[in-house]
Order: sequence, then structure tokens, then C-alpha cells
Amino acid sequence: MRQEDPVATTTEADAMRRAVALSARALGATAPNPVVGCVILDPAGEVAGEGWHRKAGGPHAEVHALAAAGDRARGGTAVVTLEPCNHTGRTGPCAQALIAAGVARVVYAVADPSPTAAGGAQTLRAAGVDTEAGLLAAEAEAVNIAWLTSARTGRPFVRWKYAATLDGRIAAADGSSRWISSAESRADAHRLRAEADAVVVGSGTLVADDPHLAVRGIEGAVQPLRVVVDTRARITLAAPVLDDAAPTLVAVGKDADTAHLPGVDVVRLPYGEGGRGLDIAALLAELYARGVRSVLLEGGPTLAGAFVAAGAVDSVTAYLAPALLGAGPAALADAGITGIAQAFRLDVTDVVRIGPDLRLTAVPTAVQEK
Amino acid sequence: MRQEDPVATTTEADAMRRAVALSARALGATAPNPVVGCVILDPAGEVAGEGWHRKAGGPHAEVHALAAAGDRARGGTAVVTLEPCNHTGRTGPCAQALIAAGVARVVYAVADPSPTAAGGAQTLRAAGVDTEAGLLAAEAEAVNIAWLTSARTGRPFVRWKYAATLDGRIAAADGSSRWISSAESRADAHRLRAEADAVVVGSGTLVADDPHLAVRGIEGAVQPLRVVVDTRARITLAAPVLDDAAPTLVAVGKDADTAHLPGVDVVRLPYGEGGRGLDIAALLAELYARGVRSVLLEGGPTLAGAFVAAGAVDSVTAYLAPALLGAGPAALADAGITGIAQAFRLDVTDVVRIGPDLRLTAVPTAVQEK
Repeated sequence: MRQEDPVATTTEADAMRRAVALSARALGATAPNPVVGCVILDPAGEVAGEGWHRKAGGPHAEVHALAAAGDRARGGTAVVTLEPCNHTGRTGPCAQALIAAGVARVVYAVADPSPTAAGGAQTLRAAGVDTEAGLLAAEAEAVNIAWLTSARTGRPFVRWKYAATLDGRIAAADGSSRWISSAESRADAHRLRAEADAVVVGSGTLVADDPHLAVRGIEGAVQPLRVVVDTRARITLAAPVLDDAAPTLVAVGKDADTAHLPGVDVVRLPYGEGGRGLDIAALLAELYARGVRSVLLEGGPTLAGAFVAAGAVDSVTAYLAPALLGAGPAALADAGITGIAQAFRLDVTDVVRIGPDLRLTAVPTAVQEK
Repeated sequence: MRQEDPVATTTEADAMRRAVALSARALGATAPNPVVGCVILDPAGEVAGEGWHRKAGGPHAEVHALAAAGDRARGGTAVVTLEPCNHTGRTGPCAQALIAAGVARVVYAVADPSPTAAGGAQTLRAAGVDTEAGLLAAEAEAVNIAWLTSARTGRPFVRWKYAATLDGRIAAADGSSRWISSAESRADAHRLRAEADAVVVGSGTLVADDPHLAVRGIEGAVQPLRVVVDTRARITLAAPVLDDAAPTLVAVGKDADTAHLPGVDVVRLPYGEGGRGLDIAALLAELYARGVRSVLLEGGPTLAGAFVAAGAVDSVTAYLAPALLGAGPAALADAGITGIAQAFRLDVTDVVRIGPDLRLTAVPTAVQEK
């Protein structure tokens, strides 16, 4: 797919860096669509317009950028983070829009893996537009990893996030956990929520922490769907997570009694292996059907164990507080792993100090090596 | 103590950097003495000689450096990582040696906190030698932290080292632990052993891993004293840790039966609080009396918990493998902490990637803030 001649220019690389940054602005707001950024260069290589996809149903990045560029797009170059789409959904195909605007060249970072939208590059080439793929592909893919993963796997991308001490505890022996991690880390975690389409917790966390799960402190954030995995429907209407700050879905076992939950959005799912918990694949299929493409799994240890056992963790973000407890629940409970050879191995992709804590991001080794 | 005028020159700072590096060469080899490095500058500021203290009973750093410098020391400057000693131990006082060599100026990094050896700077000044304290004090202190801590507290410095998964496990559910961390991390940990005067493990680790505890793969390393904390004297003569690769001390409860351990160096100690394990303060006092100034505590979780409970952990080195297990023993067991407010809080001083793993170094918050 990558064309060696002509290669992308420095100007195009700068434009792509800008387009990637623009795309990231809409993380958490575009489901079930990808995040996409676009910069239009005029024939002289000057930036003529830029745009990004802001929400599903709204104009695509290319359309925003073309509108901003106006006539200056003619004979120019469109630099876009994802292969322009080829299908007519709620908006027209971007490949046609680029052709109609007279763009002479299209440089994109990542090919579109979705069967319905792919083929844009072929359409462009057939119309005589010079196309170049792969520029800053790694950077663009990193920002769009949730959507790209969901497009490839057919289920939402799952990021497991937890905060623990150095000895792996998420609470002390008496159950107290406020606060393991610093205020800086907790604020950072709200950004993860804002970038996700859904935030998922189990009933153990519900009982222990009675969480609210909405995004706080991030201006303009789209609230994620709050999902409580509550096999036996133990939640009550008084739970903060059922307030109107954001939509909430309660996933229960197929024969759970939910008479005490009138008006609550409840989904009944099959039980997991051995009758424990819910079937994780069924849960993710339900969320995917509802348009969720990225899930932030916030625990607790039992649910996280079930996700790991189901092979449904695509990324791990750990806030490690430099503290030791020596007792209390571990971050991860039974994941069906009995021996060291079966350990769920990851590759660390990022380590950052957040206040006194460390934030560590890691992805499954197999995924990394794909 | 610090004199503002004259201040240290750039040449002196370079020499101090070199002296600190020289001092580090002898880590693990000088107990009960500190590590010390020295560079002699001639009157023109050229390096005339350098040296470091190599082992207890041998010449001090200043003596090595003066011998290398010969007559060029006269009128020159001695740059040394620790305040020159003022007492006559197995070797003569360094302050007198510097005066006798005609050194005009002495620049040292850290004051000697030990009551017997301190006062060297005063002696030098009384003899008309210009002295300057504090140059690169933080760097020099970091290398000498074990000895300095032991001089201030009267017990050995304790570094707790462990290797765990991201969820804090040191073994899988079935007990398998080879290997949690990478070959690179394990090699790095041998360096920690080589820099310690004693390596300490508990009987749980003895039973689970049957470790050897000697330093491997580091040329010229002085083998540390191997210490097994074995309250009920469960060790047998067949244990690898009792071979002749290094000396070994077995610490047992005061009334333990040790008839099966003829020829083994055994020390009897009082029991810990509640009759469990051994009294950690008594263990450290015994090691201090034997000349041990730095201890590498290698676990397991029960012994580490006892050290934390006793307030006897001065530094933590964690090798975190990017892997998850979901079951298996945690790195740290009961340390007497029940609530989050009592968490043993640390400050991260260093984070390094070692192969696929992270090596994290942290010190107790109170120590950091002193």
C-alpha cells in the first residue's frame, strides 16, 4: 500500500503531527466512529484548513477541513490520520468530497480496517489523486487504538485501570482505600474516563466504594456510559451511579430479580464459566451493539480477573502509589492462572510520574508482537 | 560548616565527581568502614593522584591518593568524598597524613557523623589547611548511604529487594516463580548483593526456593554474609546456602534445637512480638556487631513484613515484571498495618527499565524529608 515515490515531505509530516493532535481532541466523543484529524495544505504547502471528527453523525474530519480551506484545497494536499472513508453513512463518503474539491494528493497514516468504509484510497487513485499511506502511522494508531482494535476484533477495546500500592493492594486490611493514589493520579484517571465510551465496574466495587463513575473536572467531556456488572442485581435505586449525571446500564444474570429497579436500563446476560459472574464476551457484545467501542474497566479484582481470563484486556493502566500495606485485597483476583508459565505477560509502553505515583501503561505481549 | 569563600572550583567539582565514582568501586567490600574516594590536585590544579578505600584494615582513600601523588601533593588540594578521619584505628588518621604531605586545601563532600572518627576538618583547619565542605554532597551521600545511615542509627542499613508482577505477586498459585523477572533484572539484583555486606532471607523463602544467595557474575565481588532467619532451625546441612561459596549465619529462636547443625554458625535470638519470628532489632544488632553495615533483605513476604513492622526498611528496590497472575503470594505480608492511614509511604527516587521490567527505588517518606 505504501508508495515509495513520491514520499511525504517535511511539511506533510508536520501537518500529520497536527492532524493526530486534532484527532485526539475527540477521544471519547465519536463512538461508534473513529477519531480522525485532517489538515489541508494548499498547492504552495501552506496550511489552508484543518478539522477533526467531533461526534458521530457530524461531519467527518475531511469535510470540516475542506470547508475551512475553501478554494485553496484545489491542487493541494489532504493530510489525514485515517484512510478517507468510501461509504455513505450518515454523511457522504470523504473520498468523493476530496475528489470534488480538486485535491491533488492525499496522505494518510492508517488504512481503514472496517469492511464497510475501506477502499477510499482505491477510489482516490482511480480518480487520479496521488495517495500516500503510512506517514506517522504509529502515532496515529496509538491515538486511535481503541477504535482500530474494535474494528479488528468486533468487540470494544478494553483498558483495565487500577490504582494499587507497590505490593499490589487496592485497599488496606480494614477495607479503607481513600486514598491509595494521589489527587494528581485521580485527576489523570478522570481523563481516561472521558476518553472512554463506557466505564465498567463490578458489584464488589459497587458495595465497597459506592462509586459515581461520572467524569469530573474535564471541560467539555462527553460522559461515558456507566456500566455496573451486578450478577445478582444487588444495586438499589439509591446508588449514586444511578443518578442522571450520565447514562447507566446494569448488567445482571439472566434470571436475576430486578423488580426493585423500575426505570433502570437493565440487560440480562448469560452466566460465566462455572456459573460465576457474567459471560464477559456476551457483556462486550452487548456494549458493542450499543455503539461502545472503548471500555475503561475500573475493577474490582474479581471482575478484572474475569476479563483477563476471557482474554478481554487490551491495555493496562496502573497507577502505582509508592506505599506498602502488607495486607488487603490485591488488584487482580482469580484469572484462571495457576502456574508462572501461564502468566499474562505484557510489554510496558509508557511510564510517567504523576505526582508521587507512577503511571504505567502496558499491552499484552502477543498484541505488541503482532 | 560550609565556607562560602573560597568556593569550590570547577576543577574541584570534576575531581569530586571522579572521587565519588572511585568510592563506589568498593561498595560491599569495606564494612565496617565507609566507601571513600579521593583525588589529589597539584598546585596547578592537575590531577596528581587518586585512590579509594578498598577494604577494612587497608589504607584509606587519602593515603592511596597521597602515595600516588608523591611530592606533587605539596601545596595542592585533596578532594575527598568524606571528611578525613581524625582517629587512629588500624591505620593512622588521614587528617594528619594530609597535613604531613603539605596539602594546602581539603575539599570534602560529607561530614563524618561517627563520634570516633569525626573532627578531621577541625584538625585540618587548626593546622592552617583551608577546608571546604559540601561539594557534591548529595551524590557522595547517595553512594555512601548505607554506611552513613548505619553511622547515624547504630544498626545496619536495610534495603528490601523483591521481584513481583504488576499485581504484586512473587509466585503463581502453584508456587512456581521461575521466573517472574527477566534475566536482566536477576543479573542486576546480583549487583545489589555484591554491594551489600549481608543478604538476608527467611525460612519461608528457604523452603520455597532453596536459594544459594551468593553473588554470581560480578568479577571481584566480595561475597556477602548469607543470613537465614530460621526461627525453628528447619534448615538442614544439605541446604545450598550452607556451602562454602560464602560465609553463612543461621539465626534461630533462643530455644531452637540445632543439634542437626554441627559446625554451622548459629546465633540464638529472642522471639518477635507475640512470639512470632525473631526480634528484628536483635537480629540487626547482632549483624552490626559482626561488622555488617548494609543488609540486602531478599524476603520473603513474612520476613519483609516483620522488617517493615519494626521500622527497619531504609530503602526498597522493586523489580516489577509486566505480568499479571491474579493469584499467588503477595510481595509483602502482614506488617501490622490495618488502615490506609497507616500505609508505609515512600518516595520514588529512581525508575529504570531493566530489560522488559521496571526497577523502582524508593525510600521512606520521613527519611526523604529529614
